[in-house]
Amino acid sequence: MVASAILPDLATQVVVPAAAVVGIAFALLQWVLVSKVKLTPERRGDGSAAALGVAGKDGASEYLIEEEEGLNEHNVVVKCAEIQNAISEGATSFLFTEYKYVGLFMSIFAILIFLFLGSVEGFSTKSQPCHYSKDRMCKPALANAIFSTVAFVLGAVTSLISGFLGMKIATYANARTTLEARKGVGKAFITAFRSGAVMGFLLAASGLVVLYIAINLFGIYYGDDWEGLFEAITGYGLGGSSMALFGRVGGGIYTKAADVGADLVGKVERNIPEDDPRNPAVIADNVGDNVGDIAGMGSDLFGSYAESSCAALVVASISSFGINHEFTPMMYPLLISSVGIIACLITTLFATDFFEIKAVDEIEPALKKQLIISTAVMTVGIALVSWLGLPYTFTIFNFGAQKTVYSWQLFLCVAVGLWAGLIIGFVTEYYTSNAYSPVQDVADSCRTGAATNVIFGLALGYKSVIIPIFAIAFSIFLSFSLAAMYGVAVAALGMLSTIATGLAIDAYGPISDNAGGIAEMAGMSHRIRERTDALDAAGNTTAAIGKGFAIGSAALVSLALFGAFVSRAAISTVDVLTPKVFIGLLVGAMLPYWFSAMTMKSVGSAALKMVEEVRRQFNTIPGLMEGTTKPDYATCVKISTDASIKEMIPPGALVMLTPLIVGIFFGVETLSGLLAGALVSGVQIAISASNTGGAWDNAKKYIEAGASDHARTLGPKGSDCHKAAVIGDTIGDPLKDTSGPSLNILIKLMAVESLVFAPFFATHGGILFKWL
Amino acid sequence: MVASAILPDLATQVVVPAAAVVGIAFALLQWVLVSKVKLTPERRGDGSAAALGVAGKDGASEYLIEEEEGLNEHNVVVKCAEIQNAISEGATSFLFTEYKYVGLFMSIFAILIFLFLGSVEGFSTKSQPCHYSKDRMCKPALANAIFSTVAFVLGAVTSLISGFLGMKIATYANARTTLEARKGVGKAFITAFRSGAVMGFLLAASGLVVLYIAINLFGIYYGDDWEGLFEAITGYGLGGSSMALFGRVGGGIYTKAADVGADLVGKVERNIPEDDPRNPAVIADNVGDNVGDIAGMGSDLFGSYAESSCAALVVASISSFGINHEFTPMMYPLLISSVGIIACLITTLFATDFFEIKAVDEIEPALKKQLIISTAVMTVGIALVSWLGLPYTFTIFNFGAQKTVYSWQLFLCVAVGLWAGLIIGFVTEYYTSNAYSPVQDVADSCRTGAATNVIFGLALGYKSVIIPIFAIAFSIFLSFSLAAMYGVAVAALGMLSTIATGLAIDAYGPISDNAGGIAEMAGMSHRIRERTDALDAAGNTTAAIGKGFAIGSAALVSLALFGAFVSRAAISTVDVLTPKVFIGLLVGAMLPYWFSAMTMKSVGSAALKMVEEVRRQFNTIPGLMEGTTKPDYATCVKISTDASIKEMIPPGALVMLTPLIVGIFFGVETLSGLLAGALVSGVQIAISASNTGGAWDNAKKYIEAGASDHARTLGPKGSDCHKAAVIGDTIGDPLKDTSGPSLNILIKLMAVESLVFAPFFATHGGILFKWL
Repeated sequence: MVASAILPDLATQVVVPAAAVVGIAFALLQWVLVSKVKLTPERRGDGSAAALGVAGKDGASEYLIEEEEGLNEHNVVVKCAEIQNAISEGATSFLFTEYKYVGLFMSIFAILIFLFLGSVEGFSTKSQPCHYSKDRMCKPALANAIFSTVAFVLGAVTSLISGFLGMKIATYANARTTLEARKGVGKAFITAFRSGAVMGFLLAASGLVVLYIAINLFGIYYGDDWEGLFEAITGYGLGGSSMALFGRVGGGIYTKAADVGADLVGKVERNIPEDDPRNPAVIADNVGDNVGDIAGMGSDLFGSYAESSCAALVVASISSFGINHEFTPMMYPLLISSVGIIACLITTLFATDFFEIKAVDEIEPALKKQLIISTAVMTVGIALVSWLGLPYTFTIFNFGAQKTVYSWQLFLCVAVGLWAGLIIGFVTEYYTSNAYSPVQDVADSCRTGAATNVIFGLALGYKSVIIPIFAIAFSIFLSFSLAAMYGVAVAALGMLSTIATGLAIDAYGPISDNAGGIAEMAGMSHRIRERTDALDAAGNTTAAIGKGFAIGSAALVSLALFGAFVSRAAISTVDVLTPKVFIGLLVGAMLPYWFSAMTMKSVGSAALKMVEEVRRQFNTIPGLMEGTTKPDYATCVKISTDASIKEMIPPGALVMLTPLIVGIFFGVETLSGLLAGALVSGVQIAISASNTGGAWDNAKKYIEAGASDHARTLGPKGSDCHKAAVIGDTIGDPLKDTSGPSLNILIKLMAVESLVFAPFFATHGGILFKWL
Repeated sequence: MVASAILPDLATQVVVPAAAVVGIAFALLQWVLVSKVKLTPERRGDGSAAALGVAGKDGASEYLIEEEEGLNEHNVVVKCAEIQNAISEGATSFLFTEYKYVGLFMSIFAILIFLFLGSVEGFSTKSQPCHYSKDRMCKPALANAIFSTVAFVLGAVTSLISGFLGMKIATYANARTTLEARKGVGKAFITAFRSGAVMGFLLAASGLVVLYIAINLFGIYYGDDWEGLFEAITGYGLGGSSMALFGRVGGGIYTKAADVGADLVGKVERNIPEDDPRNPAVIADNVGDNVGDIAGMGSDLFGSYAESSCAALVVASISSFGINHEFTPMMYPLLISSVGIIACLITTLFATDFFEIKAVDEIEPALKKQLIISTAVMTVGIALVSWLGLPYTFTIFNFGAQKTVYSWQLFLCVAVGLWAGLIIGFVTEYYTSNAYSPVQDVADSCRTGAATNVIFGLALGYKSVIIPIFAIAFSIFLSFSLAAMYGVAVAALGMLSTIATGLAIDAYGPISDNAGGIAEMAGMSHRIRERTDALDAAGNTTAAIGKGFAIGSAALVSLALFGAFVSRAAISTVDVLTPKVFIGLLVGAMLPYWFSAMTMKSVGSAALKMVEEVRRQFNTIPGLMEGTTKPDYATCVKISTDASIKEMIPPGALVMLTPLIVGIFFGVETLSGLLAGALVSGVQIAISASNTGGAWDNAKKYIEAGASDHARTLGPKGSDCHKAAVIGDTIGDPLKDTSGPSLNILIKLMAVESLVFAPFFATHGGILFKWL
């Protein structure tokens, strides 16, 4: 007899939504705190310092102590508000355009899901024997088709809202961060970080609560048929991830076309600083940070979260939890996420309330502390959930057999994922922060020009893959050995359990980047720009760390989804030594290259167009270089928008159609090989692309900042070394912000799509081999 | 009852060595023809034109027609001879140093092979039941240890000689090509091409004859035990490939350190032309072409050839041929190679005797024709061998079972490999020749600077992977489905069957490159340099094609070796859905990145040292820039030599030790995953790296040559566009000549090493999991 969990089902029904509510409330609280920074010049100084949670008793006196130049210039504030408005409008308008096109694509895809899944049993409305327990009756395939489609739409909408809200928060926070930077680096940091936290908590909580509600609502129809219920729920992951793909690719092309275009003419040809208001592409560049790095990344991590939950749930539904209808253990993945929100909440307080940042060199350690604290707190949380939420022993479905697992083993699975994430984070930091030798070596190689810079940067990216891959391999080995695919799925959840903190420190980067842009555009002083640059340099590292997490978790999630797909497609082995599987493996390993070729070429072409437009404006608008005439920002925004909308379709179609084509024509064996190949090859390119790009960006910042003797021998801005570094940075842009981060969506999305369509492929797939 | 082959065994015993002898004789004939071009200024014009096989009736009159400036300058010839001497001496001295260190490493490795394989049965000298036919007795494991070691040494020595001879021929031919370029592009082409043919035929023939002799000599001891005989023979492939690894890596680092170093100071900083004699690194650069592109590539393709033969033989030995001791069908792989030599001989005549090149734009088509003709002729050859050399029906070992195969099916296997090679060749040409839009687009992207050039170049490389992977996947699917691993092995042999032609057009490139360098250094006229540049531009494309062949065949060979390993290690499936295999797959896919990081960093560091030395010489040697003092070439040669010797050890050790470590500690399942992962991931990086580098090089040449209106808008030399193109070219150097081509050795070598050590791993391996 299998023991039951300590936590009663009713408590689970309370704990999960309660955690989500707490998360949302915390996010709103942070929002309120950020909003205390006023963007109107009339009233100020009456309480904003206190409201920022700084332990100052007297707001006014503190102002005086920390006051810097420009604090009393009313027109600076007005200017900041204006710029913020322009950025926010540009971002909103782009996202609406993007959503319109993606919405069309998604609607067609939703219809495909319904038709394909409905056709499995010929749209019959009769119940059928269950897939795994043949002696019981399950809901008809048509129900699966309907509910999968609904879940797909739900996932897509949640993902869309996550991205959109993130963008709104970021464009709300950027100018406020700039204004706070006048008072000191600590205040600016807290504003940017709190804004990141708003996004992190909102996203984690909404992802959890929507999933929870969907399970409960779908449950009304499905009743006892948990197998069908959680199969349908996987549509949620597919929806989230599909949306994320377009968000990442579209946003990535947008932001990098603008960034590369602005840099090439402004910095390289015209010798004007980054974010100079005379540069016509500067608004597009700042809009890009918000739609690419913020909205895209938000959708991406939401997708990972949704998929890892779905992967765990679908495996659990055919394990003893599902067969015996044990609600609390079944909800283990959601309990982990719930505890994660609380753990992250505690962690956030360390950054915003318990400590204060006073100097530039405290920023990176503070962010690093966030990672360590959240991991440590969460380890306790996992232990608690594993103890309370699981029976001492249970069985897990393992490709046809049931495997006995102990609750402490599952604790190990989640914990290994969590800690592997931390290791990946630290390794990423080591390779992308300019505090360590790898980036300094890359900066040093600029002495001999751009070519050696690129060679060293590429080599750095390749090298940075080694330890993360060992960390991922170790977590896979341990979790796979202990609890089969369920273990892998919960290891992914473990890595993502601190998603709120991860997103907070990730979103902080683009917000700081924008803040710097606004400072430059508003004509604020050099010292303020230095502060935002310092925040931004740390942001490059945290962005790379965030991407590291995203990729690491994507690897685990994809494997879990892949395992679930294989189970559902009723294949018992994926033997490399069969021609069908091997060609899938080989072609799958090629897909990330194909995809990267598309996205990089898109960025390149869009950037060329942008360059032409920016050059045209400089050449034809009189007084532009002198700053007496305003450039035509709108045309540049339009170029980025049009290019990204047009260019996101082919790579998006490649990812979304490949599993369908392979499944239909070549069948599930080839598709299995394809998924495995794309997974093992994509992870490497994604990690190396992100880290190479991050390293180049920070090598450039290292030379610009000139903080050490070594750095000063390479600089200053405008030196040959610096020019070489700028070239590296520009090359890195599409690598780290377009093709790299999109790749983890590629591997996850193909896996979850295969899982959703598995019944169709198993029934009607492989027609090419059937003909032969 | 299985039918026997039409060709009697005795005929086979004659045909194979006869073909080899014909190949060697043809190579010597070409050598004699090349040597007619005199490097001594006294006698000339009395017959060299006729001797070159040109259909001119009157040598003297033809001289007059084609005569160009500089033909009568005696001191130019003397200078050419001097430079050639310096290059030849540098190359010889480097290779001797390299062989000394590699020799030490190889000796240790030979001892390891003996000890590990000997320990399988505890160094027992008693016969034992055969591995596959348990009812028969086979020679003891100790014999396998001894003969594998001998075969290993034999392979290494043959590979070494192949590389060394290639280098000698190339350094003999380079100055002669320069001198012939005075007379016209056609004559220069023929000299370069003939010299390439010397290498191609010598290498193909010697590889065949050594293998043939080894089989016959080993056969004296082994007698009936063909299983043991051909297992021992696999050592030949391991030896050839190990040597090739060091040759490629060491030579690659040497050549690119010199090339990058010379370009960065000479072209970029000092604005002096490429190969200018004032540049201190210029001799090292030209030596590098010979030790890297010629010797390294020769060893590499010899390794592929040896391995694919060994893979086919070892599978055949446990199929019906081996079991029934049918000699002619058993020798099918060697018969294919024999016919290949004859087919290539016919093909060569088309380039040297049947047609004549008169204009620059005829070079590429002539080389392309070589590919098409050799493929067409060889298809007939394969049909003939399959008809005469195979019984109509036979059985092939297929992971535990015997699969019935027809001779026409085997024909299809070889033919699909051959034609897939042609497709890969054409696709490579399309992506790397500046006659087509991809390279022109890359050149065009230089308008906006080096950054867009790099982005477009990387995207081009990624994109160029798609069709070759489909071609490889299709050949694998077809050959695997028809004749299991034997089919894959003979498909690889098919791709390599035109190796003599492939090598000829491949070696032609570096010879032309050197010829251009000698022309520049000897102070010859601009027109002569233009001619050698045109030859060289075609050479970049052919080099990329050669690499495409090398990689394509490596993929097939590795898979065949992998299959043989799996059979010999007694595992029946390699299931991705087991943790042991999956982590192998993931880590295996990472290895090419690790390896590339090492080799690229090595080139970068060595280039930095070279840059410092070249700068030092320019700054401290008075009169160097003015051309009144000679630079100190020897120091630069020493820097390249020291760097490459030192830096080739870690990547070499990574490749050679990884299978040992994984096999011993993690066992054969993880090793299988590792091999599959490295294979599917390495192929992609290798293809994209080679093509990206080739495209950048030719984009630069496109701008320099200015042959079209478009090209002229980008040039001339020294323009901003051209500078951006030079940066791309420099980045591409280590990609296309160091890390890219070494990767195919990585995947082959790990597979053949695993195969050789399989009995040891199967007996004593996986100790880590045994402990747990």
